[in-house]
Amino acid sequence: MSEELGISVKKENLSEWYQEVVLKAELADYSPVKGCIVFRPSGYGIWEIIMREFDKILKEHGVQNAYFPLFIPETLLKREAEHFEGFVPEVAWVTMAGDEKLEERLAVRPTSETIMYSMFSKWLKSYKQLPMRINQWCNVVRWETKMTKPFLRGREFLWHEAHTVHETEKEAEEEVMWAINTYKKFVEEYLAIPVIAGYKTESEKFAGAVFTTTIESLMPDGRALQMGTAHMLGQNFSKPFDVKFLGRDEKWHYAWQTSWGISTRLLGAVILVHGDDKGAVIPPKIAPVQVVIIPITFKGKEKVVLEECRKVERELKERGVRVMLDDRPDYTPGWKFNDWELKGVPLRIELGPRDIEKGTAVIARRDTGEKVEVRRSELIEKVREELEAMQRRLFERAKAEMGRRTKRAEKLEKLRKEIERGNWVIAEYCGNEKCEEKIKEVCGAEPRVIPFGTRAKGRCVVCGKRAKYVVYWARAY
Amino acid sequence: MSEELGISVKKENLSEWYQEVVLKAELADYSPVKGCIVFRPSGYGIWEIIMREFDKILKEHGVQNAYFPLFIPETLLKREAEHFEGFVPEVAWVTMAGDEKLEERLAVRPTSETIMYSMFSKWLKSYKQLPMRINQWCNVVRWETKMTKPFLRGREFLWHEAHTVHETEKEAEEEVMWAINTYKKFVEEYLAIPVIAGYKTESEKFAGAVFTTTIESLMPDGRALQMGTAHMLGQNFSKPFDVKFLGRDEKWHYAWQTSWGISTRLLGAVILVHGDDKGAVIPPKIAPVQVVIIPITFKGKEKVVLEECRKVERELKERGVRVMLDDRPDYTPGWKFNDWELKGVPLRIELGPRDIEKGTAVIARRDTGEKVEVRRSELIEKVREELEAMQRRLFERAKAEMGRRTKRAEKLEKLRKEIERGNWVIAEYCGNEKCEEKIKEVCGAEPRVIPFGTRAKGRCVVCGKRAKYVVYWARAY
Repeated sequence: MSEELGISVKKENLSEWYQEVVLKAELADYSPVKGCIVFRPSGYGIWEIIMREFDKILKEHGVQNAYFPLFIPETLLKREAEHFEGFVPEVAWVTMAGDEKLEERLAVRPTSETIMYSMFSKWLKSYKQLPMRINQWCNVVRWETKMTKPFLRGREFLWHEAHTVHETEKEAEEEVMWAINTYKKFVEEYLAIPVIAGYKTESEKFAGAVFTTTIESLMPDGRALQMGTAHMLGQNFSKPFDVKFLGRDEKWHYAWQTSWGISTRLLGAVILVHGDDKGAVIPPKIAPVQVVIIPITFKGKEKVVLEECRKVERELKERGVRVMLDDRPDYTPGWKFNDWELKGVPLRIELGPRDIEKGTAVIARRDTGEKVEVRRSELIEKVREELEAMQRRLFERAKAEMGRRTKRAEKLEKLRKEIERGNWVIAEYCGNEKCEEKIKEVCGAEPRVIPFGTRAKGRCVVCGKRAKYVVYWARAY
Repeated sequence: MSEELGISVKKENLSEWYQEVVLKAELADYSPVKGCIVFRPSGYGIWEIIMREFDKILKEHGVQNAYFPLFIPETLLKREAEHFEGFVPEVAWVTMAGDEKLEERLAVRPTSETIMYSMFSKWLKSYKQLPMRINQWCNVVRWETKMTKPFLRGREFLWHEAHTVHETEKEAEEEVMWAINTYKKFVEEYLAIPVIAGYKTESEKFAGAVFTTTIESLMPDGRALQMGTAHMLGQNFSKPFDVKFLGRDEKWHYAWQTSWGISTRLLGAVILVHGDDKGAVIPPKIAPVQVVIIPITFKGKEKVVLEECRKVERELKERGVRVMLDDRPDYTPGWKFNDWELKGVPLRIELGPRDIEKGTAVIARRDTGEKVEVRRSELIEKVREELEAMQRRLFERAKAEMGRRTKRAEKLEKLRKEIERGNWVIAEYCGNEKCEEKIKEVCGAEPRVIPFGTRAKGRCVVCGKRAKYVVYWARAY
């Protein structure tokens, strides 16, 4: 493998390693627009699978897809004050069209609450229409001023945003819980990444929400990554946007609302959590190519080998496996091995004249690097088993790693040390923003999540007063 | 049916009728941003099916999906002069982000040739990578100054844009032909709308292309609608964007390129061509709901009727039919009939206690209004047959209509009269732009398409000189 093609940095140098993997595995590339990336086919292909699979879950739940305008007039964005203040520093503004200056400038959507709810207000008439669940898969723009990083923080990203309207507060709260728990299940099952689900603190909640729930994951450098959020909006938007309905009591009521989303940021987590010194490792369930077949050809044997490879390809396709036969004649098998390892394809099948004679084939596992010889007659079944096993293995490994790196602290000094060692730390605190500030200052850590079902029993890690919340603290992406 | 719910205008008043159908069938709605619509679930659902089905065709053809930035720096957009001039009058410009004025203004993509090819230039090294076929499904913005119309002309629309790179001119030309012929087949098969495929004249080609191919359809008011285009870009972009490769001869060559797309404009054509005085008629193959089941309930019989309806629903689902059971208790069957007719659902199944006793069910066809009684035991098979028959019927009807309204003219006066009567007219012409201008002026008609495989034999309809092209003339959307 030439130096130029492979990954030249070890994963311990996480930031450089990450950048190399993203570029060399052709997952994304930098574009001529600063802070905006190109999602290349290998990266976008993962997002396509996430969209397809999650969209099924949405539809089962009664969510309908729609599409709302990219542009939001400034007056509309301003209608909910906290929301506007939260987003305005990052808004990209369209001020001209052709040669004309626009009368009112238009925000490129950073999120779509305001434009959507101006329509909900028009559509909603009766409780009979509730619950109403509308979703869109789209691009959003947030003009980050911090350092951008492919997938993890960019000025344009792709996401889904679901917005629901309910008759009662309780139903809306239940919807939020359904959403965040569904995200947890999806991310753990498909991305093989364990998450902690819970509430955000007041200081970290969505601009305009009553409360925000989140799923958070631990990255290899000890930082936490927010993987998805679901917001209880209460009536905070329904009042300024006049989203109301004629109730069972024949009176008008303001509706209860929620909004929730996951984004292409998830791709960054997949690379960070599962990748290794050789490159990306894509979990089988979201891998656009799950199996690559590499013919090991020798002079005079090309035809028989290729025929057998094509047969295996056909059989796997029929069984619903996403398979690719790499029959490029200009590259050696060794070169191909490295190329597909770099790209993170879960399984490689090697097939040569010897294997054909013996009635066997070799399967190589991307995550462990092991090779196993299997009987040709059992190959197809074996591939399916191997894919399932790898999916489990990746999750278990990440979970064990997270377990090892979850620490507890009752003193600020311990908290600081554990953060410094690359862990995230469970510590109780009193809920006072000053104590939160102190932790940020001393440890560089933020409150990431108050896990569901926890109750503080001790003292605040900072001030020693009675604690209110159990919180995961970590540096953040 | 109350006046408010149904369509209050006849289809002969096409423009008003169209607007009512779009709004009342809840396909789209006007948004707070002038010229931008909301794609409501009933409308977006059709687009989802078009995306899903056409995406399969793209993948089969070796096209890879990706995603490129929404924003294009002005210098990049300017690099191909004709292209820039063609698009700049309609560009929406981002000039501010947060409080900061941007150093260079950014175009919101009207199309993505320039941003994509700046990347292709970076990625392409060798002929071994060719052909390269990259596609994206995305939103685009063109700041129309003409009157906008939902789906047909808007400031933001959704589309796919495929961009391919080839080793030779011939291969690129073949790709263009593959694309436009595939569009023709797809639109005729799925949308049940006949099209004429051919070349655009010089005056109507894509800004920056060597030539443009198009598929055009005739709308009920005699106007032509461009349904999709495929452009031969030659080396017009590869030169300014430096898209080149090391060839088989070990020398560098500029690549040959194509680009092609279809958009949500197609939804407008579906409504215009197939709709009737009762509302929309959605062809079965693209209908998000193909069959609606309406329980005809009588007091005391609700349970047995609903159970049978659920059974039918289950059986149809298992057979892959997109079915919905309308069991809303607050509405009468008659109200539901009208509601679903308005929305254009192809088939309605009516099931009441009488039917259950007799072992029958009633199927109502949306396009003809006919009702047929079928045996319950044959219902599922019958539904599938009916859906296929309706798909064919819609296409045949539209084709016959197009045939009746395709006229020929050898004199300008005849051309003018036929256009006025709401037809499109085949007339030969010399290719001189002055003659084209004359036809526009006298008849209000534009050259829509030079059909593939035609050869002029006569005289120019304007100047009487030897004709060069056979052209379909029509007013345009």
